[in-house]
Amino acid sequence: MELSTYYPIWDSLSADQQNLLRRTAVRRQVPKGTMIHSGSMDCAGMLLIQSGQLRGYILSEEGRQVTVYRLFDREICILSASCILRSIQFEIFIQAEKDTVLWAIPPEVFDQLMTQSAPAANYTREIMEARLSDVMWLVEQVMWRSMDSRVAAFLLEESSIEGTNLLKITHETIANHLGTHREVVTRMLRYFQAEGLINMSRGVVELVDAQKLRSIVK
Amino acid sequence: MELSTYYPIWDSLSADQQNLLRRTAVRRQVPKGTMIHSGSMDCAGMLLIQSGQLRGYILSEEGRQVTVYRLFDREICILSASCILRSIQFEIFIQAEKDTVLWAIPPEVFDQLMTQSAPAANYTREIMEARLSDVMWLVEQVMWRSMDSRVAAFLLEESSIEGTNLLKITHETIANHLGTHREVVTRMLRYFQAEGLINMSRGVVELVDAQKLRSIVK
Repeated sequence: MELSTYYPIWDSLSADQQNLLRRTAVRRQVPKGTMIHSGSMDCAGMLLIQSGQLRGYILSEEGRQVTVYRLFDREICILSASCILRSIQFEIFIQAEKDTVLWAIPPEVFDQLMTQSAPAANYTREIMEARLSDVMWLVEQVMWRSMDSRVAAFLLEESSIEGTNLLKITHETIANHLGTHREVVTRMLRYFQAEGLINMSRGVVELVDAQKLRSIVK
Repeated sequence: MELSTYYPIWDSLSADQQNLLRRTAVRRQVPKGTMIHSGSMDCAGMLLIQSGQLRGYILSEEGRQVTVYRLFDREICILSASCILRSIQFEIFIQAEKDTVLWAIPPEVFDQLMTQSAPAANYTREIMEARLSDVMWLVEQVMWRSMDSRVAAFLLEESSIEGTNLLKITHETIANHLGTHREVVTRMLRYFQAEGLINMSRGVVELVDAQKLRSIVK
């Protein structure tokens, strides 16, 4: 598929700007698990996701993780261009959660594009608003929700993303999404199992009663 | 003082755009305590702060607050124009923490300006990045810091903002900044007092040992 179809403001760009993007964009196949961005160490640029799944997370000094946002087909990752976003004052890590195919626009090209084009600048600003909304959602979860509600919400989200009630996921991975310890997740899942909400067996969490899980999320 | 001196990209605007801003901007004197923005109920527009102090916070369903960011002299508030920022998917509340003088640019003018001007769009995007950084800081605080560290950091921040070690502030107000209960703050302050870090008397918290407080923040 063409680059143009993955950048919603393509038609608002001049022919020169379109040519610049075509000339400099790099199509990358990124295997699941690949680190795309590690704090201030990389600057992959703006990423247009053709297919796949990316996860943005932060790290504590002790190495604990918490997922801040996830991106899917046809979404755009801009925090991977943090080197040119000078008011970004935090370290974000971005990893491919699935095999991903994307177009990478080099940071200096992305920068030039925003400087020249109000539509490009506004579109980036809108993506930034969406990330801000993601992080505000996280704040609300962490501040006002209990851990059972957060684990239930995560299981339902995963089930929706994967399109199945059988989730192949470790307790460690769930803990890394939610910013908590594996033991906390294990305890919560055992409680859910005892209540008949889920079934656990060999690395698989089966959602048995999604409706009851939803009632926990509130 | 002139409007132009409070909008850093003024010189990058066309004469028409400058005239539009001059014609439509409203200078407002906002007494301390005034609610400037209440979720999706208002849309005051972009606010250029001449002097004063604003506080952005979110509310839980039970009415608990947590401060997300604070803005000072010569800073710009854009989330007060959330009606035209369609990817903002949360309810923010903005209140004057001190008597404030500001210029309000109506939302439709702000919108038009960003549509026409790449510098205006990019500058807004940079402010959005700064707010995203504020919220990420909050996430890190809430996720990885203990309450003693957060209370100590807040007292030091207040002391720095006010330029004094004598803080006229209630335990309730501190709790509303940090998103916790008054009782939790009271318990923490009593502990700090017992350790010789602060002194409390009649609505005043005196920072006695700022260095030791700093060591708690880590």
